[in-house]
Amino acid sequence: MTSRKLLLLPGDGIGPEAMAEVRKLIAVMNADMNAGFETEEGLVGGCAYDTHGASISDADMDKAMAADAVLFGAVGGPKWDGVPYEVRPEAGLLRLRKEMELFANLRPAICYPALASSSSLKPDVVEGLDILILRELTGGVYFGEPKEIIDLGNGQKRGIDTQVYDTFEIERISGVAFELARTRRNKVCSMEKRNVMKSGVLWNEVVTATHKAKYSDVELTHMLADAGGMQLVRWPKQFDVIVTDNLFGDMLSDVAAMLTGSLGMLPSASLGAPDAKTGSRKALYEPVHGSAPDIAGQGIANPIAMIASFAMCLRYSFNMVAEADRLEAAISSVLDDGLRTKDIMSDGMTEVGTVAMGDAIVEKF
Amino acid sequence: MTSRKLLLLPGDGIGPEAMAEVRKLIAVMNADMNAGFETEEGLVGGCAYDTHGASISDADMDKAMAADAVLFGAVGGPKWDGVPYEVRPEAGLLRLRKEMELFANLRPAICYPALASSSSLKPDVVEGLDILILRELTGGVYFGEPKEIIDLGNGQKRGIDTQVYDTFEIERISGVAFELARTRRNKVCSMEKRNVMKSGVLWNEVVTATHKAKYSDVELTHMLADAGGMQLVRWPKQFDVIVTDNLFGDMLSDVAAMLTGSLGMLPSASLGAPDAKTGSRKALYEPVHGSAPDIAGQGIANPIAMIASFAMCLRYSFNMVAEADRLEAAISSVLDDGLRTKDIMSDGMTEVGTVAMGDAIVEKF
Ligand SMILES: CC(C)[C@H](C(=O)O)[C@@H](O)C(=O)O
Ligand SMILES: CC(C)[C@H](C(=O)O)[C@@H](O)C(=O)O
Repeated sequence: MTSRKLLLLPGDGIGPEAMAEVRKLIAVMNADMNAGFETEEGLVGGCAYDTHGASISDADMDKAMAADAVLFGAVGGPKWDGVPYEVRPEAGLLRLRKEMELFANLRPAICYPALASSSSLKPDVVEGLDILILRELTGGVYFGEPKEIIDLGNGQKRGIDTQVYDTFEIERISGVAFELARTRRNKVCSMEKRNVMKSGVLWNEVVTATHKAKYSDVELTHMLADAGGMQLVRWPKQFDVIVTDNLFGDMLSDVAAMLTGSLGMLPSASLGAPDAKTGSRKALYEPVHGSAPDIAGQGIANPIAMIASFAMCLRYSFNMVAEADRLEAAISSVLDDGLRTKDIMSDGMTEVGTVAMGDAIVEKF
Repeated sequence: MTSRKLLLLPGDGIGPEAMAEVRKLIAVMNADMNAGFETEEGLVGGCAYDTHGASISDADMDKAMAADAVLFGAVGGPKWDGVPYEVRPEAGLLRLRKEMELFANLRPAICYPALASSSSLKPDVVEGLDILILRELTGGVYFGEPKEIIDLGNGQKRGIDTQVYDTFEIERISGVAFELARTRRNKVCSMEKRNVMKSGVLWNEVVTATHKAKYSDVELTHMLADAGGMQLVRWPKQFDVIVTDNLFGDMLSDVAAMLTGSLGMLPSASLGAPDAKTGSRKALYEPVHGSAPDIAGQGIANPIAMIASFAMCLRYSFNMVAEADRLEAAISSVLDDGLRTKDIMSDGMTEVGTVAMGDAIVEKF
């Protein structure tokens, strides 16, 4: 029997509640399908700080490095607003991304048909929307040095962050973009601010060269990132795959997620490079939403983004395509049946809690 | 008679066509109201490069420094895509902002009632929208050094940009935010990425301290910039004044502009610090839209953003509040009459060109 090693990092806030629903799916797949998942558990974020004084312990980092895939809930909350910068909850997530070299962050923005009317955008603008934001995740201003606050004296301080991109980083993320586009509608739009940033000039140059060298069958366009934000709001269906840097990707994927009316529903996958020998790649899967401390512990959180992240895990880490399809269909189906958690509730639908939503999806699966 | 010195920099693309409509207003105000505007003209952007080999000449920079206010059209176009980075069209605009020390960029996002239905957002989300994005304009990643591309050898290059903010820069922009909020709905939301950027940590700290020291009567909230982008799309009316850095302001103001359905209609003001003796401040006024090279020269561009920028100029540079109010009312009124340029045309309205739209506004004024 295959063994499939999963590390579960539920994190803070609603993370643990959402992760509990995925555990049910894992149990069912092990029992009924001999899926052979072996799970370990770890701490990340504020709860790791409370226990270890670090936002992720070295031992849990080791587990992450050894796992076939990591499932990540969410981190942070007001409780940890005052902790030192180096050990803030987010640092745990950033360490995972950096040390596992998860440079490719896939953020699909899809509009579930049942939810088209709950977007703040007009239904015809978002109905049927299916775009993919591919965000570079281990470079740029998130990790560049110097990154510091200097005391200049006289009550003046200077805050510095450094945006850095090397050719090879842009090359590998654009390669992923073109490969993904080939499995979709064959279009890539690259976004940067080459009119203001030197890293944007290089980004544009390398994406163009990579396209020319290996992927000229894919349609490539370029857009300034500010114009890209506008176009996402104006007519998002013009896009297929959007490839962009770490910081622009952070902003643009959040805007894109909100368009769909399905924010609490959207998953993401963060992938490393395939191993030269085995072809397997390090991977972490997490919901796009945050830890939502305001509703944590009430049993009302929407577990769908976490469950959909597990579906991405089946697809990308274990090549269990049929199972991933079935799980995604199960999600659509409970929505079609009118089940809604509080965040997506609307007239005439049936409001259910986290556990009932999870159970309904397991049932359909 | 007062003399009021204006420098007109129409720039490229539709800039000159839009500026021509403002010239009519200036002529009318001089003739009928003794307004005493003295205008000079200059080149900026691609046209300046074609003439002088620079995106703005030193002579025109001198005129800008000497003027009471600068009216700026738009710069750029495919014609100049290949010119060296240092003399690209945008460099002229950036030089004006930096040398005139125009640190405060006011970008109102208002939804003209007549256009509420032309937004891609649902009418109830944007109807009556009136928010102000205040963008820091002379700091951050736009100007920080190092900003360069280094050749690393082996076919590898490194693109570097530096985000830098000093205490005094954050202090002065937040002061402007709080002052503006007092004339509006008394709320400021500050946006940064303090969970990832040290400049964000400092930004948050200084805004909070400035608030505490001098503006505690104003309501202050903080939001991460990515969440801010989401919230702008979800429910923009929750905001009054948003204060943010140069790059986030670039992105967020474009998203906000697109929400209103009035992108071709939105003006902006870029202001320096008031002179200690005279109280007057350097200022530049420009539309939020770009040079739209695809429609340049056809007489179909919407001149309203340029005219509304002139209204902001009357208000902020010349304290001609009544005239500014009247000009803004004239714009609303022609829209209520059903006049539309092509970009905002909809069923049952009357399509007009740039000149006819300008004439109609002059007429109502
Ligand atoms: C939590 C935070 C560090 C993170 C980021 O900025 O990358 C989050 O916003 C995201 O998009 O995953
Ligand atoms: C033209 C460009 C340099 C400029 C900017 O990025 O600031 C523009 O996008 C703006 O928002 O005024």
